[in-house]
Amino acid sequence: MRSVTKDNITDVFMSYLSADTDPRTREIMGSLVRHMHDFARETNLTHDEWRAGIAFLEGCAAIESEDRHEFVLASDVLGMSSLVDMLHSRDDATSSSVLGPFHVSGAPALPFGGDMKRHFGGPVLLAEGTIRDTDGAPIPGAEIDIWQTAPNGLYASQDAEQDTFSFHGLMTVGADGRYAFTTVKPVEYTVPSDGPVGDILRSCGRHPWRPSHLHYIVKAPGFRSLVTEIFPDDDPYLDEDTVFGVRNDLVMKYTERAPSEFPEGMALSGSITEPFLHVEFDVTLARDT
Amino acid sequence: MRSVTKDNITDVFMSYLSADTDPRTREIMGSLVRHMHDFARETNLTHDEWRAGIAFLEGCAAIESEDRHEFVLASDVLGMSSLVDMLHSRDDATSSSVLGPFHVSGAPALPFGGDMKRHFGGPVLLAEGTIRDTDGAPIPGAEIDIWQTAPNGLYASQDAEQDTFSFHGLMTVGADGRYAFTTVKPVEYTVPSDGPVGDILRSCGRHPWRPSHLHYIVKAPGFRSLVTEIFPDDDPYLDEDTVFGVRNDLVMKYTERAPSEFPEGMALSGSITEPFLHVEFDVTLARDT
Repeated sequence: MRSVTKDNITDVFMSYLSADTDPRTREIMGSLVRHMHDFARETNLTHDEWRAGIAFLEGCAAIESEDRHEFVLASDVLGMSSLVDMLHSRDDATSSSVLGPFHVSGAPALPFGGDMKRHFGGPVLLAEGTIRDTDGAPIPGAEIDIWQTAPNGLYASQDAEQDTFSFHGLMTVGADGRYAFTTVKPVEYTVPSDGPVGDILRSCGRHPWRPSHLHYIVKAPGFRSLVTEIFPDDDPYLDEDTVFGVRNDLVMKYTERAPSEFPEGMALSGSITEPFLHVEFDVTLARDT
Repeated sequence: MRSVTKDNITDVFMSYLSADTDPRTREIMGSLVRHMHDFARETNLTHDEWRAGIAFLEGCAAIESEDRHEFVLASDVLGMSSLVDMLHSRDDATSSSVLGPFHVSGAPALPFGGDMKRHFGGPVLLAEGTIRDTDGAPIPGAEIDIWQTAPNGLYASQDAEQDTFSFHGLMTVGADGRYAFTTVKPVEYTVPSDGPVGDILRSCGRHPWRPSHLHYIVKAPGFRSLVTEIFPDDDPYLDEDTVFGVRNDLVMKYTERAPSEFPEGMALSGSITEPFLHVEFDVTLARDT
């Protein structure tokens, strides 16, 4: 087409796709480009604004590294990551919520009743629950990959004071589908805001805070893997999570318990002298069908 | 909002913007995020597809450098760069067309009648014309920044055999608004297709070719700067420029002339023994009001 105009360019783009283009590729590229073009037309996007968009992408590129995933963070604060999660959540299973950029593969095994807090101070939290299928039956052998911030609000990969797998653990549940571990209560924290994504937050008058949460990835053969988070119901940022991760069924009450109520058979049993927090969080997995 | 859903997340996003957000920022972020969310909802974008999108951006980031602008190239082949050009083209001025990633600032001065081809072989092209305002009056002192590929299809920045400003020149027109220079006829060439943008082209069954062209940036005090290109009317890729740059008023006839028709007073006058090509391309600039 030698006479491309602002009105026909989207159709010209589609005419360039070959007839044997994979139908899903055609659907995705078509929708993506139509929305990009409509965005430019609707806003009458200027060259300076286009350059600012390119500079944003190049700025993300400049700090992208194994430990800094600025494009994922951009997707998070624009609500794209959560939207994709919600599009594929099942009504009869526990809601999924953002993976975030701080998951590390290969976490060490954490036995039932094990402790993740090690030498770190802060209120002890006992988290426990059952992994079930949608009929309510336990799923023996389900695996929970757990991670969270240290009491300073930093994940291991952000913090030179922590080793790689600090506050990371991988627990396999038994025949009863139960899990239990101790940690410190996670704290609210800010997403990294010293890069281009932080500039966007500031230009929109937005804060970079997330409510405190525990991350879980729950897996079992024959079931859909679930990436999710648990939030305490008294967190000040619950209604304005900067990455849109909060769902009603992920908000839990963290109850204060007396030291005498701490159960037997856990790594910290016998050493609890102060009141501790307790949360029960059951997870329902949908079958992978 | 603690109960974010796939249907309300766009509104929740807008509710996060502070009341004193700059109105244009609000307009652009609102339109951008609404279109991103609609894209994901319309296509029911999966996690794997989202990850492919992130991997695309990270792949661009990995090769981004001073000489390789993969994000600009992505914008080019998706039609965004041309669309922004067309949104701000004026009907009464020469059409603008893509800047592309190969412009280099600081080109050496090229006097009226000067030669850009130097030792390079290929058909000699004499390009000339007048820079005018929208009333048809010449614009004395207008400046033309000219660049093109070498006969091997490569720009200086892509080619270790060329120096930085090979096939780059900056001409200032005189009182009559006229410019004239010699070069070799530009050749059609491929945009870089060994990166993530090339993967997109291949997945859509698209070729990476651009029709041959001369790039101009034309500037004059009091006028809107014009970024444009000139295409020969017999180029095989004129109807399928991979970056959507062709406009009707930028397609010109390159006429073959006898050596005896070569004008006096140019750098190559007296040395032309073979037929040469001639193109007359007048440029109209709109006032910067």
